[in-house]
Amino acid sequence: IGSHSAETDSQTEWTDVQKKIIPWKNSTPSLDLEMAFQDRAAKLGKSNSGLIVVASLIDKPTNLGGLCRTSEIFGASALVVGSLHYIQDKQFQHLSVSAEQWLPLVEVKPCQLVDYLQQKKTEGYTIIGVEQTAKSFDLTEYCFPEKSLLLLGNEHEGIPANLIHHLDVCVEIPQQGIIRSLNVHVSGALLIWEYTRQQVIKQKQQK
Amino acid sequence: IGSHSAETDSQTEWTDVQKKIIPWKNSTPSLDLEMAFQDRAAKLGKSNSGLIVVASLIDKPTNLGGLCRTSEIFGASALVVGSLHYIQDKQFQHLSVSAEQWLPLVEVKPCQLVDYLQQKKTEGYTIIGVEQTAKSFDLTEYCFPEKSLLLLGNEHEGIPANLIHHLDVCVEIPQQGIIRSLNVHVSGALLIWEYTRQQVIKQKQQK
Repeated sequence: IGSHSAETDSQTEWTDVQKKIIPWKNSTPSLDLEMAFQDRAAKLGKSNSGLIVVASLIDKPTNLGGLCRTSEIFGASALVVGSLHYIQDKQFQHLSVSAEQWLPLVEVKPCQLVDYLQQKKTEGYTIIGVEQTAKSFDLTEYCFPEKSLLLLGNEHEGIPANLIHHLDVCVEIPQQGIIRSLNVHVSGALLIWEYTRQQVIKQKQQK
Repeated sequence: IGSHSAETDSQTEWTDVQKKIIPWKNSTPSLDLEMAFQDRAAKLGKSNSGLIVVASLIDKPTNLGGLCRTSEIFGASALVVGSLHYIQDKQFQHLSVSAEQWLPLVEVKPCQLVDYLQQKKTEGYTIIGVEQTAKSFDLTEYCFPEKSLLLLGNEHEGIPANLIHHLDVCVEIPQQGIIRSLNVHVSGALLIWEYTRQQVIKQKQQK
């Protein structure tokens, strides 16, 4: 549980990866991103996950740093943030324990999200909002597609109404307490875990 | 996701609850604890969970505050901490968003843990360590008993060897990344969720 060491790659290589993927909208973002994935996969000798975690609406560096660590550990293919400047934040770094060196980070500003989600739809991703709505699926009942994009809400506002229309589905975490909602990092972690758990079980069944 | 409001109870009532359960070793701790549960259950009109989260080995107020919030939301019956002084810590309070007013907190110092775990065993709890060991169950394969006690490890040392012997089972979270381990609050949250998910599914099957 406790210790969080990480073999660090040379800073130069990571800078190269960063250059390739900042920002997503220049030229051919998905091609660039794919190259970053292939780089990472080649380095690590692992296949790529079909999970993208979109945290562009999140404001707090602590939540972003924590999500970076958790996303990396579960092998998400990318973490999307509202600004790559967060990486320089000390609170981010304290919580990410250098996971940003191993996980492709993509910058998509909140105002670019509609375009980005549309683009990902055409690439075959199901756009999943983590939000409580009248039509939300209960997380205990939702079956994640292999290509899943998780959109996390803002700490205070959740997911704004204009973005809700662009989602394929909403998923909510059933909560029993008096305190109304989980921390957004924890919500994200539970969905990342649930996606991972289902993929592990599918892979075992195929063997 | 975002907003974290909480209807706050009168401070007096909570002080009464605290008095009843501090510390667990005076007189008849389980009876006192049970009274606190019944109080809460009566107030909330809910049945009690069979889940106890033991965080006595955890040092950081942020992790404890976060665990308090998450444990409360999933209706754990108690959170056990190494010292109740943590409740006064500003970082704890910032992360717990007042969940400590709704979740029974029990003080069990690290040096009292062996006795406490033994006591809980006699009460029918399965003692589950969240730790990577040669004999750990994979979280995707572990089936939680209704009466589950989760022992979380220290941020740096994990669960010390002398306590490992007193566990009934160890459970580990399969991790794919380069960064070696999850934050202890996140690890705890995933096990709390997995316990909750399994209980929800069991309850649906019984209907």
